Amino acid sequence: MDTVTSALLTDLYELTMLEAAREAGTASRRCVFEVFTRSLPEGRRYGALAGTGRVLDAIADFRFDDADLRYLRRAGLLKQETLEHLAEYRFTGDVHGYAEGELYFPNSPVLRIEGTFENAVLLETVVLSILNHDSGIASAGSRMITAARGRPCIEMGGRRVHEDGAIAAARAAYIVGFASTSNLAAGAHYRVPVAGTAAHAFTLLFDTEEEAFRAQLASQGSGTTVLVDTYDVESAVRRAVELAGPGLGAVRLDSGDLGAQAGRVRDLLDSLGARGTRITATGDLDEYRLEELQDVPLDGYGIGTRLVTGGGHPAPGFVYKLVEREGADGQMHPVGKRSADKATLGAGKAAYRMRVGEHAHAELVLPGEAEVAEFERELTAELTSGQSNPDWTRTSLRSLQQPLIVGGEVVEDLRAPARVEAARAQHAASVEELGLSPDEGPDGPVAIPTITDGAEAARLLG
Amino acid sequence: MDTVTSALLTDLYELTMLEAAREAGTASRRCVFEVFTRSLPEGRRYGALAGTGRVLDAIADFRFDDADLRYLRRAGLLKQETLEHLAEYRFTGDVHGYAEGELYFPNSPVLRIEGTFENAVLLETVVLSILNHDSGIASAGSRMITAARGRPCIEMGGRRVHEDGAIAAARAAYIVGFASTSNLAAGAHYRVPVAGTAAHAFTLLFDTEEEAFRAQLASQGSGTTVLVDTYDVESAVRRAVELAGPGLGAVRLDSGDLGAQAGRVRDLLDSLGARGTRITATGDLDEYRLEELQDVPLDGYGIGTRLVTGGGHPAPGFVYKLVEREGADGQMHPVGKRSADKATLGAGKAAYRMRVGEHAHAELVLPGEAEVAEFERELTAELTSGQSNPDWTRTSLRSLQQPLIVGGEVVEDLRAPARVEAARAQHAASVEELGLSPDEGPDGPVAIPTITDGAEAARLLG
Repeated sequence: MDTVTSALLTDLYELTMLEAAREAGTASRRCVFEVFTRSLPEGRRYGALAGTGRVLDAIADFRFDDADLRYLRRAGLLKQETLEHLAEYRFTGDVHGYAEGELYFPNSPVLRIEGTFENAVLLETVVLSILNHDSGIASAGSRMITAARGRPCIEMGGRRVHEDGAIAAARAAYIVGFASTSNLAAGAHYRVPVAGTAAHAFTLLFDTEEEAFRAQLASQGSGTTVLVDTYDVESAVRRAVELAGPGLGAVRLDSGDLGAQAGRVRDLLDSLGARGTRITATGDLDEYRLEELQDVPLDGYGIGTRLVTGGGHPAPGFVYKLVEREGADGQMHPVGKRSADKATLGAGKAAYRMRVGEHAHAELVLPGEAEVAEFERELTAELTSGQSNPDWTRTSLRSLQQPLIVGGEVVEDLRAPARVEAARAQHAASVEELGLSPDEGPDGPVAIPTITDGAEAARLLG
Repeated sequence: MDTVTSALLTDLYELTMLEAAREAGTASRRCVFEVFTRSLPEGRRYGALAGTGRVLDAIADFRFDDADLRYLRRAGLLKQETLEHLAEYRFTGDVHGYAEGELYFPNSPVLRIEGTFENAVLLETVVLSILNHDSGIASAGSRMITAARGRPCIEMGGRRVHEDGAIAAARAAYIVGFASTSNLAAGAHYRVPVAGTAAHAFTLLFDTEEEAFRAQLASQGSGTTVLVDTYDVESAVRRAVELAGPGLGAVRLDSGDLGAQAGRVRDLLDSLGARGTRITATGDLDEYRLEELQDVPLDGYGIGTRLVTGGGHPAPGFVYKLVEREGADGQMHPVGKRSADKATLGAGKAAYRMRVGEHAHAELVLPGEAEVAEFERELTAELTSGQSNPDWTRTSLRSLQQPLIVGGEVVEDLRAPARVEAARAQHAASVEELGLSPDEGPDGPVAIPTITDGAEAARLLG
């Protein structure tokens, strides 16, 4: 397939809306769009934001090239004047958002896009594709890392997702704490550490398992990971240690009752003097299975399908909604759909994580400057009254939104490859701030409430 | 991100296995790999194969370019001699497989790759990524098309999946019978028809709904689809017909109780004389919801999230397994992992759909030439005995495997864009051959058994 521009990763209706707005004279009205999700999947305590760096790349590169315009012309869906406008299109507005790796909760405005209608409406599809995909994986992966309780996890799910999605999946997994990936393209493009073992095909290629092990050890050294479940696990472990010596790096189990098997393999390795040889488990693992395996003597996990398909919740449901726009009067007005089940809170919002001491206490999402001002007024009054709840003095607010694109230019160092290590650090810090214990298990109510009313926010600790 | 070669869409272990096999002198052994899934998800009656055309593109383009080799050298994971070998790599073997769009069942060998170990092992990840992704979507989409009972469906899920995955998703959906997609890149690259309506943002951009409708109708003509649930559905429908006249193309409902609402909107449209105006429904639709809506007066569906995320089963579990290889004796030998829960049937297999009359009756997957010969012998004897079950005379076998790549060259016209219309026709024919009635509902036992034993196959109608 030819290279695809990010501009064509777009739904047709964005272009026809642009055309209709241009003809009606409203295309240059200033608009504020926000990206948020209305709820978390049942049982999920938080979401993990990933993909922001990739979104910035996509916006910076968002251009209709000649092939795109030829297609649009041939398809006959747009007028010549619209095509000429698209040929000159580039995003010139502003984007603010949560740092990549940050946690999100219902209604957290993880991205805010400001610009004219015709400038900002076109970004909807590509922004949502990236954030929904990457954050779905990050949100599942973060739970798995907690459940792994420090045991290193390798992302190895590339074969279960779209081939390019696999690269983004490895990136998202690394951001939430995976140690490495099996995917070479993620290593090349995002500098994610790569790791690998061997497949059953390798053992089966040789006339005997012993020949296969000899070949692997001779080529890869004794620090390699040997797959021991092609024939009989016990004989394979004995054989591998015989051939490699007690310095054998690791053995991998990929089938059977991992819990029972790992104990026997650990005892066997120890009895053979291979006390330093690690045991890695793979095969349909997820956070629930990892919980069950926490007392089993395993040293690391390879995690694939359940991670890269979002652990049962493949898309977080991020939407891209117009929340504020210029009216005929030249003033900005909050707007929102009024349908009962999908109502949208109007106005651009300011977002803070309220902390008490070291821990997150609430997500403040305050619509409009008046709400923010009211909250700050009440907070200050409370703090200076002398009679405040002692908790108030330990209260702090962490602003969650930062400038990502200013006047069409991506803020330095925020594009996707440079962003990965910073996002990984951000995620680790935000999870720690949340203060959940792994012993609570993966599921539960949402960890902190989202407060969307300034007075209510101020009363939180009142 | 730089353009990614299909060669780097690969797991590290494929390259280290290649290196070890080269050093051990087994890399040039002839091998047969097969792609199959061990089971269908609970309740699924069949799977729909999609992605084959994209697989052929990926194999044809599978080259390590200079940037790839620089990365691999820098990463220090492979020896110089291996890197030099990879620089010259191209696939030179043969690939046979099911036609794209065909149905598959447990153990159907949808793809067979033959070549030396070092030539064929490298394709594992990219082949599985594509077939798992595209077939997961096709398998869900095929059920939705059945449940839609002829009402046209638009694929509009691009925003819920990886941005490049969105293009493949639109392609897969079209193959299984979707009428169109909202995704422009799928239109440009695979000539999938594109369609679109308007978003709530468009209505909200204007000071009044009436101004928005006027603008859309003026620009897009009265045949357009107007979104009527931003404020009040009934007033919006009245307004749209007033402005457009009875020739209004369609109205879209995206929230609320679709069942109750659609009836009221239909009555209202009819009472306004807009008998030809269609009603399109969107919003978390899937095959179960479509079943419930079958008696509701709707004229088409827009389907997103549940389709592109595989309707709860995002990856069909296709694996790429070595089933036969040359031994030290120079002869081919069936091979397979012996682990209890993941045992693999050895040997390359021949696959046929057994038909009785017009309908599919069984999937024959016969391991080895001896099994195929035994089956054909028994079938012929039965047919010529004069005492056969009358059904035998109505029995026919349809061979399911066709050459896709011969000596490294893709068979003409099988690459991805050219393949789409043929795959769509294949899918429709195979679903009809299966003979399931929509009234059975989407779920049930697997529709036809997979028979892997020649004698058992011959006894089927005995």
